[in-house]
Amino acid sequence: MTASYAVGIDLGGTNIKGGVCTPDGQLRFRRSIDTQAAGGVAHVLGRMAELVDDLVRDAQLTKTELAGVGVGAPGPMSHAAGVVHNAPNLPGWVNVPLREQFSAMIGLPVVLENDANAAAFGEYVAGAGREVHSLVMLTLGTGIGGGIVLAGKLWRGHFDNAGEIGHLVTVPDGRACPCGQRGCLERYASASAVAERLCEAVRAGESSTLKAKVLANEAFDARHVLAAADAGDALAARIWDETCQYLALGIVNLRHLLNPELVVLAGGLSNAGPRLLEPVKAHFERLSWKIAPDAPRIALATLGENAGMIGAAALARAGLGF
Amino acid sequence: MTASYAVGIDLGGTNIKGGVCTPDGQLRFRRSIDTQAAGGVAHVLGRMAELVDDLVRDAQLTKTELAGVGVGAPGPMSHAAGVVHNAPNLPGWVNVPLREQFSAMIGLPVVLENDANAAAFGEYVAGAGREVHSLVMLTLGTGIGGGIVLAGKLWRGHFDNAGEIGHLVTVPDGRACPCGQRGCLERYASASAVAERLCEAVRAGESSTLKAKVLANEAFDARHVLAAADAGDALAARIWDETCQYLALGIVNLRHLLNPELVVLAGGLSNAGPRLLEPVKAHFERLSWKIAPDAPRIALATLGENAGMIGAAALARAGLGF
Repeated sequence: MTASYAVGIDLGGTNIKGGVCTPDGQLRFRRSIDTQAAGGVAHVLGRMAELVDDLVRDAQLTKTELAGVGVGAPGPMSHAAGVVHNAPNLPGWVNVPLREQFSAMIGLPVVLENDANAAAFGEYVAGAGREVHSLVMLTLGTGIGGGIVLAGKLWRGHFDNAGEIGHLVTVPDGRACPCGQRGCLERYASASAVAERLCEAVRAGESSTLKAKVLANEAFDARHVLAAADAGDALAARIWDETCQYLALGIVNLRHLLNPELVVLAGGLSNAGPRLLEPVKAHFERLSWKIAPDAPRIALATLGENAGMIGAAALARAGLGF
Repeated sequence: MTASYAVGIDLGGTNIKGGVCTPDGQLRFRRSIDTQAAGGVAHVLGRMAELVDDLVRDAQLTKTELAGVGVGAPGPMSHAAGVVHNAPNLPGWVNVPLREQFSAMIGLPVVLENDANAAAFGEYVAGAGREVHSLVMLTLGTGIGGGIVLAGKLWRGHFDNAGEIGHLVTVPDGRACPCGQRGCLERYASASAVAERLCEAVRAGESSTLKAKVLANEAFDARHVLAAADAGDALAARIWDETCQYLALGIVNLRHLLNPELVVLAGGLSNAGPRLLEPVKAHFERLSWKIAPDAPRIALATLGENAGMIGAAALARAGLGF
């Protein structure tokens, strides 16, 4: 048994998920615990350390058999320095030297990675991208995150901020984004934007079977919009179709700029499966050029919420990256 | 003297330019000859071979002292296979195995590279980007070409078609592009698009000091538009400003996707110097986010038309790339 087991941790505002990755890249002994983010930085790091201990015990390993621990975390960070600059969903997490502190606590090498990058790398090593050399992944959730793998390595950007696909300006002077820009892709094609755009249209007087929900301020999300569309609601159908169209435009631009082998759609919206993938492909086909046979394959992610753990563990094992 | 001299060739529809690159990366003994493209593939390859002989003689070298010859060529190609698929300005150049044929003719290793990539790599090794690790270059000419250097290596894309920045869709459902798409950046911000947009505005009835020229179908270009703008022509000033704004939008998207250290503006339009750079920077500042200090520096290219030769020679010497 070589020291090529690794632990992958996916640190979120609500849960901390962890798993042991075997030398052949399989995720085993998964655990999920509450983050208890309100407890602050030291408390959360303590919980992460316990999680590592529990996973090592689950796997009947000793720590010396682990190559290290990879942590996928939210928010702007420095991978090289191992510092989380700011994690909006984790109170008090400002300029936390996670790699150094956590490594000292657990006595193992730690790699810190942006959660969207970790998930993209997970799909690359063990998911939708395991046969390809380059991919771009779009994680379609509250916002749109992204990760870029080129020739088998994560491209993190000079400022560790590459792959912010949600903030590609897609509509000049378009919808305002909390980031301060206008027309960002995630204001059109994130899971939240789908629900939001439908609400706005209803409030502006368009008719929809979801009107009562909207006017009663009931919580609803992209799933309701898709269900309404599939039940014949014309407005919901238009909103869903436009969403797929904006995503396709984003992929057209990925094609021309990065020219990857594969584009992977992940995150909440991708649970719609073929109802997302097929119209996105059709709009891509319609909107992009035909003069060169250089279109990426477009596919759904296959690892679900395990992608981040698998990617983080793989990065801890191999330290791959530019 | 080691075998680290290299020849760089920039193959264009009108001229073939060549130079010898010294081991310390300086371009010497430059020559430019007519392409005589009408003569066909074999004729042009013969002229390139003569050019190499002449340059070797100029530099008082023997061929054994050369690491190889790098050729920057237009049009879609396969770098790995060394094949030019199609060069619109070179009649008969369809699926030409340039690397193999030319290497056999001159008895030296040959590297084939897309001309925009070669120029970007030139600016990286010896020009505006010689102090950085990553850059994206926009070549603003008849169209808009691009090249991407990440961590010191060219990213060519899976299909050798990365960096097609001119075809980033910038305005959804916007101006038609000969490529078949709508709203491509080069339909707004290439040197030709500047003149073209002014013509259209005049023909649509807007007033301009360039009106007589437009209506008489006189040839004019972006330089005339800028000169008119600087002389107080309101329409020309608006067209120029919009051009800078579209370029800034493109750079916003490069920032978020690739997060490079530097963005380099090259090509005909960049001859406007600060009259291009300063408004592009100002619009970028206005249009992009302030929530992370991850903006690339934006700078003008410094090597002019030597960039392609220098980059091609450097690639021949080092074979750098993904």
